[in-house]
Amino acid sequence: MITRPSTHFLPRLSRVRGELHAAALDAFVVTHPANIRYLTGFSGSAGLVVITQTRCDLVVDFRYGIAARAAIASSRDLESAVKVVIPPESYDDTLVALLRESEAFRIGIEAAYLPVSRFNRLSMALANGVPTQHSTPDPCPILVPTERLVERGRLIKDADEIGTMKEAGRRIAAAALEVPALVREGRSELEIASDIEAILRRVGFERTAFETIVASGPNSARPHARPGARVVAAGDGVVLDFGGVYDGYCVDLTRTVQIGPSRPEFRRLLEAVAEAQTAAIAAVRPGVLASEVDRAARDVLTRHGLGEAFGHGTGHGLGLEVHEEPRVGRSVTGLPETPLEPGMVFTVEPGAYVEDIGGVRIEDDVLVTQAGCEVITRTANR
Amino acid sequence: MITRPSTHFLPRLSRVRGELHAAALDAFVVTHPANIRYLTGFSGSAGLVVITQTRCDLVVDFRYGIAARAAIASSRDLESAVKVVIPPESYDDTLVALLRESEAFRIGIEAAYLPVSRFNRLSMALANGVPTQHSTPDPCPILVPTERLVERGRLIKDADEIGTMKEAGRRIAAAALEVPALVREGRSELEIASDIEAILRRVGFERTAFETIVASGPNSARPHARPGARVVAAGDGVVLDFGGVYDGYCVDLTRTVQIGPSRPEFRRLLEAVAEAQTAAIAAVRPGVLASEVDRAARDVLTRHGLGEAFGHGTGHGLGLEVHEEPRVGRSVTGLPETPLEPGMVFTVEPGAYVEDIGGVRIEDDVLVTQAGCEVITRTANR
Repeated sequence: MITRPSTHFLPRLSRVRGELHAAALDAFVVTHPANIRYLTGFSGSAGLVVITQTRCDLVVDFRYGIAARAAIASSRDLESAVKVVIPPESYDDTLVALLRESEAFRIGIEAAYLPVSRFNRLSMALANGVPTQHSTPDPCPILVPTERLVERGRLIKDADEIGTMKEAGRRIAAAALEVPALVREGRSELEIASDIEAILRRVGFERTAFETIVASGPNSARPHARPGARVVAAGDGVVLDFGGVYDGYCVDLTRTVQIGPSRPEFRRLLEAVAEAQTAAIAAVRPGVLASEVDRAARDVLTRHGLGEAFGHGTGHGLGLEVHEEPRVGRSVTGLPETPLEPGMVFTVEPGAYVEDIGGVRIEDDVLVTQAGCEVITRTANR
Repeated sequence: MITRPSTHFLPRLSRVRGELHAAALDAFVVTHPANIRYLTGFSGSAGLVVITQTRCDLVVDFRYGIAARAAIASSRDLESAVKVVIPPESYDDTLVALLRESEAFRIGIEAAYLPVSRFNRLSMALANGVPTQHSTPDPCPILVPTERLVERGRLIKDADEIGTMKEAGRRIAAAALEVPALVREGRSELEIASDIEAILRRVGFERTAFETIVASGPNSARPHARPGARVVAAGDGVVLDFGGVYDGYCVDLTRTVQIGPSRPEFRRLLEAVAEAQTAAIAAVRPGVLASEVDRAARDVLTRHGLGEAFGHGTGHGLGLEVHEEPRVGRSVTGLPETPLEPGMVFTVEPGAYVEDIGGVRIEDDVLVTQAGCEVITRTANR
């Protein structure tokens, strides 16, 4: 379950400890799986991490114990930094015991992920553990909601992550070259989706990053259509949106093809969206706001009379999750803006969806560099 | 996105309204996708439902608007019961506006799913909306944590769900018949997993219910191993655990095969686990506690000296989610016991994992009936 014994986990853990210090937190409980993986390499579906200035405990259940212990033991860095704990009964009983032992008073939790019920149960369990027989009662430990404490680090990919994501980008670009040939009259959306997923496996992805989208004809006008029994017919536009996970990291790519005979009104959509994508990619460089990248795409489509037909954002961050920061969309009142920085990786995927003509979306993944950006999914057939 | 216009949604909505009445709630906000689908048929990945005694609003964004509106309009029952709302800005602004309009005071939320941060933001937004200029201030609306309000209904499948799940069971059983032939010396775990997934699609599943497990040789001793590059070798035991989603409903099946030459110590594991599964299935009938089904399997394995080798529960409920109620495991202090009732559907999947011998798991899905149970995944090759 832990794939790469390496030293890049320690700087990540140090950064989080700096955040704990800044927020006057004595301990921090990580429950979001992508954040657990980022900090410890552990990639099982269940587990939690408790971080203090002196300890890092990875709590995983029986099912993952063998894998987690073996992997931690294989790296001297991880072995000294992270202790694997197998909970004798429930995760949260073990968590409460670890927190009591640490004598932490202000305990950060991941408010974007921890459900209200678990927050309430943990709060009560921590309160119950405080001895009340003293004349001066000990203060009761409190759970402090935090947001983006780990995510702020994940937003800027380190050298190791960039290497992995570039390799993933090369592989999905290679897969994309094979995709247009799969789209032929008489084949169903589901058959094409199945073939795309087989190609993704063959080029080395461990799994798909999301349910592959093959949306043909009228379905192409629905940005999140699921592949179905519909058979591709002459004149159809077909949106093909697929993603793969490589060594834990997600890449995501969309191509739109039209099978003959060519329809000029669909061709017009294709050209406008391609132009919008080119403009958005050209706008990417350090210091620019993510919303300006969105506006670059949106301005082109608006000029083509397709502003209303582009009903989603221009892109989303990629990494251990297929949707993460930065959000690349219109600026929203009350939401802070993200200025781009080298090391950010995100999709650029404008689209236009018109009910009687069809839909078009073109998506590539970019890495922000010092000079501008690098398209990590570059193919010849865009 | 809404697949079946039908009348079975209305009784589900009525049951929830009865629960609201009993809990003195004026409104209920459903955010868990499986619960949204259960109540409205809407199966997109984002959305929310607001239920009062007189209204049911399904809030879905632009991407799903066309599909949701078309489907709701196709069923007179749904059309009269559910109103589709496309949020002009954010989901939660629309939610707060709907709640204010309803003049609800006590508003139930799904505490097992709603994250702390969203709970806090919604609470503040509702408090901000209360006019403060009156001499007698209006009471501030409050969010009330609820648990299992929709899930209590989902626990007992209705006739429509039973029909769907039996069909899904037949299909995955048919797929299982083809699986042993895929396991041959020289083939990698990933190749075998890919072939299993292609079979699942061919027999009619819309997607896999989880990442297919193919765990060979030493990997078989890890209950949640992921398929990798390891090539199957002579003498290996291979655990094959796969699931499919059919019309939204999940089924889940495991077979373990050993390729020659036969190893008596592995054969002994296989026979003990098969005996444990038979005993557990024989224990299933209305009124029996789920923990007694677990004990039936555990007693057999303990008698064979394999009690310690069986480190997980005997099963889990199936339905719109691949892990739902009932939990079929040891009784846990403080957790209420579930007496079985007709209409429950769950897996029976004892296993034994011994590091130097390998692992075995055998899994089928059962429906509790008046008389006992029906194995909905029955195959000849178990």
